[in-house]
Parts: sequence; C-alpha cells; structure tokens
Amino acid sequence: MGYFDAASSVPLHPVARQALQASLDEGWADPARLHREGRRARLLLDAAREAAAETVGCRPDELTFTTSGTRAVHTGVAGVLGGRRRVGRHLIVSAVEHSCVLHAADTHEAAGGSVSQVAVDRAGAVTADAYREALRPDTALACLQSANHEVGTEQPVAEVAAVCREAGVPLLVDAAQSLGWGRVEGDWSVLTGSAHKWGGPSGVGLLVVRKGVRFAAQGPVDERESGRAPGFENIPAIVAAAASLRAVRAEAAQEAVRLRELTERIRARVPELVPDVEVVGDPVQRLPGIVTFSCLYVDGETLLHELDRAGFSVSSGSSCTSSTLTPSHVLRAMGVLSEGNIRVSLPPGTDAEEVERFLQVLPGAVAGVREKLDAPASGPVAREDGDDVLVVDSLGKRCPIPVIELAKVIGQVPVGGLVRVLSDDEAARLDIPAWCEMRGQEYVGEEPAERGTAYLVRRLG
Amino acid sequence: MGYFDAASSVPLHPVARQALQASLDEGWADPARLHREGRRARLLLDAAREAAAETVGCRPDELTFTTSGTRAVHTGVAGVLGGRRRVGRHLIVSAVEHSCVLHAADTHEAAGGSVSQVAVDRAGAVTADAYREALRPDTALACLQSANHEVGTEQPVAEVAAVCREAGVPLLVDAAQSLGWGRVEGDWSVLTGSAHKWGGPSGVGLLVVRKGVRFAAQGPVDERESGRAPGFENIPAIVAAAASLRAVRAEAAQEAVRLRELTERIRARVPELVPDVEVVGDPVQRLPGIVTFSCLYVDGETLLHELDRAGFSVSSGSSCTSSTLTPSHVLRAMGVLSEGNIRVSLPPGTDAEEVERFLQVLPGAVAGVREKLDAPASGPVAREDGDDVLVVDSLGKRCPIPVIELAKVIGQVPVGGLVRVLSDDEAARLDIPAWCEMRGQEYVGEEPAERGTAYLVRRLG
Repeated sequence: MGYFDAASSVPLHPVARQALQASLDEGWADPARLHREGRRARLLLDAAREAAAETVGCRPDELTFTTSGTRAVHTGVAGVLGGRRRVGRHLIVSAVEHSCVLHAADTHEAAGGSVSQVAVDRAGAVTADAYREALRPDTALACLQSANHEVGTEQPVAEVAAVCREAGVPLLVDAAQSLGWGRVEGDWSVLTGSAHKWGGPSGVGLLVVRKGVRFAAQGPVDERESGRAPGFENIPAIVAAAASLRAVRAEAAQEAVRLRELTERIRARVPELVPDVEVVGDPVQRLPGIVTFSCLYVDGETLLHELDRAGFSVSSGSSCTSSTLTPSHVLRAMGVLSEGNIRVSLPPGTDAEEVERFLQVLPGAVAGVREKLDAPASGPVAREDGDDVLVVDSLGKRCPIPVIELAKVIGQVPVGGLVRVLSDDEAARLDIPAWCEMRGQEYVGEEPAERGTAYLVRRLG
Repeated sequence: MGYFDAASSVPLHPVARQALQASLDEGWADPARLHREGRRARLLLDAAREAAAETVGCRPDELTFTTSGTRAVHTGVAGVLGGRRRVGRHLIVSAVEHSCVLHAADTHEAAGGSVSQVAVDRAGAVTADAYREALRPDTALACLQSANHEVGTEQPVAEVAAVCREAGVPLLVDAAQSLGWGRVEGDWSVLTGSAHKWGGPSGVGLLVVRKGVRFAAQGPVDERESGRAPGFENIPAIVAAAASLRAVRAEAAQEAVRLRELTERIRARVPELVPDVEVVGDPVQRLPGIVTFSCLYVDGETLLHELDRAGFSVSSGSSCTSSTLTPSHVLRAMGVLSEGNIRVSLPPGTDAEEVERFLQVLPGAVAGVREKLDAPASGPVAREDGDDVLVVDSLGKRCPIPVIELAKVIGQVPVGGLVRVLSDDEAARLDIPAWCEMRGQEYVGEEPAERGTAYLVRRLG
C-alpha cells in the first residue's frame, strides 16, 4: 500500500524500535535518583543527549528533550519572548509556519504582544529582505521554518539568520520537516524538531537554545531538562529518537536523491495526466519527498477517500478536510488554488513502482470526483455572447462548487463582461482568484454582498 | 536486587510492554488524518480513552491524555484557574502536595493570584475542617493529593471534596500515587494521574475534568485532546498506559494486602532494629507499599549509598539529597525529623525475603554511617553539671552534624540549662525540634544570630 503522508508522521525506524526495546528495561527509573536504576537511566539520557546534539550540531547542554515538536516550539517561543521582554514584545513569524508557531504567536498577541507576519511568494518562500523590513527595535524574536510542511519549499534560513544576527535578534528555526535530512545551516539561535517525523517514536521533541540566548522558561517548571521541560523524562523514547535521527541521517544523502527523482516525476507527470492541475511549491528549493498539487473542480475530501480506497494515503489542505472549513493557511498565504488539494509526502524507502501506480490511479480518481460534481469540461471556455454582468448565486455551497459554477457560466458573458459570484465559503476567496490565474481571466476583486461576499471576474477570452 | 523506590517509578508492567509492542505498528500515524493509517490510530486512541475512563470512573470525553502527570497537574490547575477567573484568583493547596502542584501554585502567585497552604498534622494528613476554613468567596480552585508520595499518608479526599462542593469550589485531586490501587472516591471535579507510577510507560499522564467544571486551557493549544494537550499524541504509550492501569487494578486488592503486611513489618521492626529512629506517616490511613522513617545522626545521602551498595534502591527527603540543600517540604510541613530519612516504596510483586534482607542490612548500614560521623551513643543523655548556657558553633556544617553536636553537649549543661546551637543549615530548623521531641528535651525556639540562626534547647532530663 502507498503511505504517502510522511510529512505527518512515519512508522518507527527499525533502529528506533531496537533502541526502544533495549531501553525499556534500562530507562524506566527516575534519572534524578541516586540509586543504580536511577544512575543507569541518567547514563542513557546523557548518551542520547550527546548523540542528538552531535547530529543536530550543538552542545549537549544546549539541547533539551521535550514531549513533542509542538511543545518544543511553544516552550522555545515563550522562553525567548520571556527572556527578552526588556527588549520588547514584537514577534516575527512567516505566514506559512506550522500552526503550532502561529498558535504561540496568537497567545503572545492575546497577552498584549505584537506579531508581524512575513508574506511569502507564490512558491511559498520568504525573503531575507522581508525579514529585514519586519525587524524593529522592539523585536524580541523571529521565527522561520527550515522548510514548509505542506508544499516542501525550503526557506532561506541562513540568509534570514544573518539578517537577524545583524540586528541582534534571535532566530528560532522550526526544523520539524528537515532535521532528518540534514543540519540546519546558518547562525540560528533556537531550533526545534519532532522525532516522529524522522522515524523516532511519538512523544519526543527537541529544543536547542544556543548559549548566550536570553531564555526564561514560562509557566511552572521543575529541575528536569535544565528547567525547560517539566515532567518525568521519557527516556526509552528519547533514546530511540536519538538513535533513529542518527540512522536516518546516515541514509539521508542517498535517499534524498532517490526521493527527489520520484517527486520530480510526480511534479512533471501530474499536469500531463490530469487536466486543470496546479502544482504548487518551489520546483527546485524543496524537500526531497514532498510534492503538492491542487485540482480544479474537485472536492479534496472526496478525492482523499477515492485515493484511500485505491490504497494511497495522502493529505490535503482543502477547506473541506479541515474542521474549520477554511483552506490551509499555507495555500492561502501563497495565493494558490486550494480546491482538490493533495500533498504527497513520500517516506524514505518508497519504491518507484508505488509512485507509478499512484500516477496510474490519480487521473481516474480525479475524473470520477469531477464527474460526480458535474464539473465543466477542461479546455478553453466557449465564447458566447450574453449579458454584461451575470450573477451566480453560490450561497450555502461549499468548495469546489462556487468555482465550478463560475467556470460553467463564464462563456455566457461577452469578452469584457463580468461574472459576479456570490459565496459564503471561505475557500472561494482563494480559489476564484486562483482559477482566474489558471484560466487567463481577470480577477477584479471582492466586495461585501447582502449575504456573503461578491467575487468579480472579468472575461478576457 | 531490591528496588524499593516504586513511588518514583516502576518498571513496565508485562501487559504494558505487550500493548506497547503491538501498537507501535498500528499507532504511529496522525489520528487526525482521514486515511486508513490515521483512522487506525484514531481507533486505538479512542479505545484507550474508553478503557482508561472506565478504570478511573469518568466519561471518556472527560479524560485527556497528557505527556506526564506533571503536565496534567499544570494544565489542570491553570485551566480551572483560567476558567473561573471571574470568581476570583484564590487557590488552596495542601502543604504536602507534590512539587508540581506547588510549582503551579508559585506560578499563579507570581502572576498576581493568591495561594493558601493547608497545614497537615504530624502524620501528614489534612482535615476537611482546615479546607473549610481556607475557602473564601474568591476561591477558584482547591487541590489535594489522594495520598502523599513521601510518607504514604492517605488524605480525606471524599470529605474535602464534599466541603468544596458545598462551597461551589472545584477540587483537583492529584491521584498519582493511588490511581493504580483504586478509584478516587468522593465528588471531586478534576483528577490527575501518571502512567509510569502504575507500570505504564513514561510520557503519559491523565487529566480528567468533570463535565460542568469551567475550564479554559492556558497557553497555545491545538485541536488535539479536546484542546487541552497540544502536540502529536503518543498513541502506543497511551494504549500501553491504559492497558496496564486495567491490569494493575485487577491485581490491586490482593497485592495491597500483601504489600501492606510487608510495610507493616518494616514499620514495626525498624524501631526495634535501629536505635533513634522515627517512623513517619499515618500508621493506618496509608498506601499499601510506602513506609518512611528518619534516623537520628545520619547523613541521608551516605545511607542511600550504603543501601545501594547492599543492593537496595530507596529514596530520601533529607536535605543532603536535594539540590537545594533543604529538607523535603513534606517532612518540614509534618514537623518530623528529616535527617537520615529513608522512603521505602515497594513495587507490586516485592517478595517477603527481599524485605527481610533489607531489615538485616539496614541496622549495619545506619551504624556504619553513625560511626563515620562520630555520632553519640544512643540512650539517655548523661547527667552532668556544667554551664547554664552552652554555645555550640555548627556554622558551615551540614545535616546531621548540628544535631550530633547538640546531642554530644546536652549532658554538659545542668537540667534546666540551655544549649544554643548556631547553624546556617536549613535542615537544623526541622531536625533540632524533632530531636528534642524524640529525646524529651524542650525546644525553646530560634532567634537570628550574627551569622545563621540560634536554636535554643533546654535540658529537661
């Protein structure tokens, strides 16, 4: 079966499993105790810290084990903001950070801090210049992911770190997606990671705080993990996490070449095999295993289910697959199509035949969903004459219906004429402009309507 | 070998190990995903929640899995204080709570809240009346452990819960030490637990919040665990935790009788075998597996090492075994001797021979430490005449030296005469009064001295 959702989580690496088994017998005691069981647990914990630090590229006393990548981010953000409170309360994040970073930013804002979001280009990347512009005298911390979790785009971390260093502002790098592939380059100050992304067990995150960074842990702490991660240490899982990080790193260079070839194949072939597809994310500066595309006129959830039935596990940033019924904030920030969104993230070891079989299955799956939704046929829109402004009432209809209805009527207005789509679906705000760009029509803008929002589209051809 | 530190942590229960192994293959995926791997993980998580809820005695939707017992307490305390902020910002805790509760209280106080500590008797127990007196119109939350982790004393949780319920104040019960032994009785509102105390793996805590309790999680959260425990769920460990809780409960009634008999034996025999020992904690209302005693004129850390060399792993609340060089806050609140403190906490399955061997080894170990410290011989103090006030300068000397020096000179003052012990060791504040009580001398009080503190003792006999 094709498990293509490695960016969410991957199965335990064999090395991790072995390390976990072995340390269940040795690592269950309290490492703070003076007795032999405690000392044995402490030895395991110290050895795991040294191994992880060497792989990450930091000093062992800079590295704290947390209970998840999310917790590492929350602790790291709050700790630096607390430690640098006298400098100010301004926080910079990119618009495409993982939600745990944005949640930490929301909490900071709710407590009276200020937050700037750095925009990304259509490929999902920030620029160092944008960070330079966002920096202020009261900036306490800047955050940037090493690579994006939804589209795979790598960020210019080293350049942004240099800009921040120049301004004396620490940069926190969320390296959850990339740490298994290699060290994070550049002069960053704080780094976070998550073990289950690299084949380690759940329940382990990494927080690295460089010496010299002012850090004041927030909330109640205890004497464990240098006062940065309260609660009993999960030593067997920590040992397994450190062992698997080392193991995947040893295989990373070779595996990256192989997976990159496979995702390159998907990037190239999907637009040939499936009409009306937008492949998103940077084609070059990207993680080896992730490729993301969106399919016009497709309901992402139904497509997920079709692919699941065919044996492929992928994920989607479409609004219909989120509990809030809004498209992924990453796709939104990039300004790309969100309907029929599919992220393929290949775990290490994926073989080429599985990818080939996916490419065989995908066109039929997309066509099946489109047929059910009565989507318009692909190709240039028929040129007919009609009214100058045509109103499409899509109120109460969810993605991808508003875009399908727009596509169906655009041919009914004359060239230069307008279609006014009424919609109360959040996804329309993203998908109607994206459709215009894909179809060579002009997106005029939106205005409030009596109910929902009116999206104006001018027929160009 | 005798691992007698079960109150810190116990090895993985065989059922937990089996459940962990089995769910490593099934429970690694993201339970929020729609694909088969995600659905499978979700099923495991839901089943574990139902099993744990049934064992605890709550609804599944009242139970959140956290990453540790400590995290459960921190989240529970902050969540109720946040949810009931309009009622007020007063928090009640007992003086003998686990340090994680006291850390949460400190954080609350630092943020402008107020905290009342309910005192305990010499056995370490609170009374419902003391909680009633502590309740105020602005009390947002009261906390009480089900049983004490250092001395094993069970608290009157049901009575305190009734008093709190009457006042409309939720009671949070830290049940870390008792949850493996049975349900917590009474009408509590919030309950916390820790899996590695009952043979589950590290990395799993329980937080139960009864329906109807106002709760507002603090800090950044996400959509996981009802918005109460952010970060990727550790499903294999959660499954193992729930399975082992059920397993230890099935054996609990029988095992409790057996362990109680063994700790009863220690309680009775230690004072016979070792001179100058105070057994602390309630002799009746106590956990089956814990017994704690303190040995006059003994350095706790040295005694731990002696016992460790003889193959016994125990813990100590003596000041010399803490990083802060202060005695355990529990012993302090009870007003009992802290020097030479030993907690024996037997894991389920401990056999009687091991306990017998411990009782054989202990007297020699204590005698050895006393000999090294040149401790006074036991028995009544020699009656000699001497000066009316004798000053002992113990400045710069650590526990148990100040008490040893006091004991050596008390015979040099006449009956009715005073010894003035100068000490800058925190443990002296606890141990000199405790020594007076054990020796039938009068503790007059303390006063500031030029350096350190002067402790005044009147010779009575």
